[in-house]
Amino acid sequence: MKFDNPVPVTTIAQLIGAEVSGNTHEMVTGINEIHKVEKGDLVFVDHPKYYGTCLNSAATFIIINKKIDCPENKTLLIVDEPFEAYLKIINFYRPFTPSMKWISDTAFLGEGTIVMPGVYIGDEVHIGKNCVIHPHVTILDHCLIGDDVIIQSGTVIGSDAFYYNKKTNRDIHYKKMTSCGRVLIENAVEIGANCSIDRGVSHDTVIGAGTKMDNLIHIGHDTVIGKNCLFAGQVGIAGGTTIEDNVILWGQVGVSKTLTIGKDAVVYAQSGVKDSIAGGKVYFGSPVEEAKEKMKEFVWIKRIPLLWEKVMGKKV
Amino acid sequence: MKFDNPVPVTTIAQLIGAEVSGNTHEMVTGINEIHKVEKGDLVFVDHPKYYGTCLNSAATFIIINKKIDCPENKTLLIVDEPFEAYLKIINFYRPFTPSMKWISDTAFLGEGTIVMPGVYIGDEVHIGKNCVIHPHVTILDHCLIGDDVIIQSGTVIGSDAFYYNKKTNRDIHYKKMTSCGRVLIENAVEIGANCSIDRGVSHDTVIGAGTKMDNLIHIGHDTVIGKNCLFAGQVGIAGGTTIEDNVILWGQVGVSKTLTIGKDAVVYAQSGVKDSIAGGKVYFGSPVEEAKEKMKEFVWIKRIPLLWEKVMGKKV
Amino acid sequence: MKFDNPVPVTTIAQLIGAEVSGNTHEMVTGINEIHKVEKGDLVFVDHPKYYGTCLNSAATFIIINKKIDCPENKTLLIVDEPFEAYLKIINFYRPFTPSMKWISDTAFLGEGTIVMPGVYIGDEVHIGKNCVIHPHVTILDHCLIGDDVIIQSGTVIGSDAFYYNKKTNRDIHYKKMTSCGRVLIENAVEIGANCSIDRGVSHDTVIGAGTKMDNLIHIGHDTVIGKNCLFAGQVGIAGGTTIEDNVILWGQVGVSKTLTIGKDAVVYAQSGVKDSIAGGKVYFGSPVEEAKEKMKEFVWIKRIPLLWEKVMGKKV
Repeated sequence: MKFDNPVPVTTIAQLIGAEVSGNTHEMVTGINEIHKVEKGDLVFVDHPKYYGTCLNSAATFIIINKKIDCPENKTLLIVDEPFEAYLKIINFYRPFTPSMKWISDTAFLGEGTIVMPGVYIGDEVHIGKNCVIHPHVTILDHCLIGDDVIIQSGTVIGSDAFYYNKKTNRDIHYKKMTSCGRVLIENAVEIGANCSIDRGVSHDTVIGAGTKMDNLIHIGHDTVIGKNCLFAGQVGIAGGTTIEDNVILWGQVGVSKTLTIGKDAVVYAQSGVKDSIAGGKVYFGSPVEEAKEKMKEFVWIKRIPLLWEKVMGKKV
Repeated sequence: MKFDNPVPVTTIAQLIGAEVSGNTHEMVTGINEIHKVEKGDLVFVDHPKYYGTCLNSAATFIIINKKIDCPENKTLLIVDEPFEAYLKIINFYRPFTPSMKWISDTAFLGEGTIVMPGVYIGDEVHIGKNCVIHPHVTILDHCLIGDDVIIQSGTVIGSDAFYYNKKTNRDIHYKKMTSCGRVLIENAVEIGANCSIDRGVSHDTVIGAGTKMDNLIHIGHDTVIGKNCLFAGQVGIAGGTTIEDNVILWGQVGVSKTLTIGKDAVVYAQSGVKDSIAGGKVYFGSPVEEAKEKMKEFVWIKRIPLLWEKVMGKKV
Repeated sequence: MKFDNPVPVTTIAQLIGAEVSGNTHEMVTGINEIHKVEKGDLVFVDHPKYYGTCLNSAATFIIINKKIDCPENKTLLIVDEPFEAYLKIINFYRPFTPSMKWISDTAFLGEGTIVMPGVYIGDEVHIGKNCVIHPHVTILDHCLIGDDVIIQSGTVIGSDAFYYNKKTNRDIHYKKMTSCGRVLIENAVEIGANCSIDRGVSHDTVIGAGTKMDNLIHIGHDTVIGKNCLFAGQVGIAGGTTIEDNVILWGQVGVSKTLTIGKDAVVYAQSGVKDSIAGGKVYFGSPVEEAKEKMKEFVWIKRIPLLWEKVMGKKV
């Protein structure tokens, strides 16, 4: 998430009660998670295991719970609880201010776009030209939608990430990580009925141009989907995952988080993808293998009784 | 379901045309299913197989299709068709009277609670403080929602149970069991987009405090979910099931009816839970086994060709 | 899809720029896909592999990309791109003209039918007597609903088919096949919350009388479901499939396209049906087998370690 305007690091430090270590004259351009962070951005880290990743990231500003040695081009903001500091920044610079109109005055609708009854469009939403938004669609704040997009009834664009910080030592068990990211839907995307596409936690969930989705599909936060993919009904994809171009996922496929499915891969129905898989191949199973290997396995299993008879000298 | 006020048993008997056997001077406090019934309540039974269970239950009043011997503290209401009698009572004491306003005048909204556009809230709904109810949420009659609850767009709270009485000897095949129960959502629960949570048939579906659910989740009638559970996207749980505290269900897990998942259990994605499983362990598979056993099984299957070669003296 | 009135074949030919080969004096009654086509209807074909099927179908008129020999009772409409010609006809005779009212003036609601707040009902929809349409249901143009039907909140009836024509040699990758079919819901059907039932591409999706569906179910285009079926939560059925009477599908079952499930079949939870299966049996697995065979397989897999020990002379 980028701030509307750059903010002095001292202003941020004051907001979160941080000690600043490093250059105090720089401007902060936004806040983001470690994999998506850019120069000028803030990240936060609260576990020594990830200190190194932060120091080596593009982030200019690091909210951290310990004063450590760091390169000259980084500035540390030291606080006791980086996660709480992150929430404070998000809630200050992108507070949840629910629009109480069906279609916000700050939403933009391109020429030729049809918005049917019962559609909710939040603040700062931008929808391109010649789209059809069917009844009962919900498009939440800050989402961007290209041209020639069709969204069928009941679908929700920009629901909050399913992302919690575990707090076992308190009366609160899971604390919600406020979502401040967006959903970007590129041109000629078509999305079926009653789907849900979560916004990024602090970056963007992206649906690439020409991708078509069937009904009742779930796409997690910060997932990036390539161009011209086809997803059949009830597919579910967790957060932070990358699906490259032309991938086909058949019905009820599940895909785990933060992995990559390579270009042109095809995954058969009801399969479960738990690790990254290479492009250009066909997969099946839960967890998936190459489909032709999985098919052989079914044949082998059927041969066990024959083996048993041969080895044990009798049928069971 | 409790009646608004206790009703003389003779009034109930007259309504359903029952012969009363036992104390005719008592008051009926409610009607409920056999597992949830309390002293003063009615139950119904139409198969000799379940007569004993009813006689040994807490129920004070039993609608039954045969005059049988029974303890002194029970009263029988004898009718030809107990199921029809049950429906008659429900339809009389809790008739379906759809509220035709977006937000019923009899709904209560606590301080600080935000209700966004396009939300439907039925009769006698009570929502606590500081909740956020996103666009297009449906909360049906009699549901109770605690404080600090977030419900995302398109979710339905209090849909009818999927519960039918089979009538093979008639022109009607399945007869709907009218739902008169509720959904109780405790404090700090968060529910994703496009979920559905069915009301209890005659008792309550409960979502325990601090539990967080992702999108497109289905929770069946009378299911009771503990505190601080985490359910990922597209999980489905059938009716009458108990999920204890801190259970984690990953994406697309399916859970069958009337079973128990013990405290702190973790079930990996796409697994199917068909019988009760103990707490404190990690599970995988459809049907589930302990995950480490299931993982070994995958390795064993891959060894079949080697066994075959050794035993048969040749590759296939 | 039938035209409102029969259209001279020369009018159609002019609309799509076709050369007519055969009888030019006949009237075209409708347009349909090859499996559903009737006398008087148009079909289209663009691959020689399917020329024969078209010539042997009931279709009177064939839009085709090559002049071929054909029987006297068929008329060819020859164009370079039959798919584009098909779209042109659909878009001319059944253009997408979104109704901008919550309930269209051309919709019909039978006596005793309750339509709750936030329901969208499109053009030419017909709903029978004594139905209950819960809040936030969407019923799109031309769908027909019988008597005593219950549709729970958030469900979408008549969403577009997930049906695309692949165009690899162009800047457009998948081209949407405009849906002009309907959904027909027969008497006493009950549909749960947040389901989606796609309309037929050019014919009808049918839900047979007395069938009951739980929540979050997806039914594809042109699928025909028999009478008195029971589908539990999160079942998904692809397009063009036939489910005969009294079929029971338990939770999260997936069914592939254009197959048949025979009468009285039962499919256990999370199973995947990829080919037609006979009626009267019980199935399990992904892909399904008869449940009792599948259960044996689980036992056999557990015996592999014993076989290994016997053959290899040692434990692993």
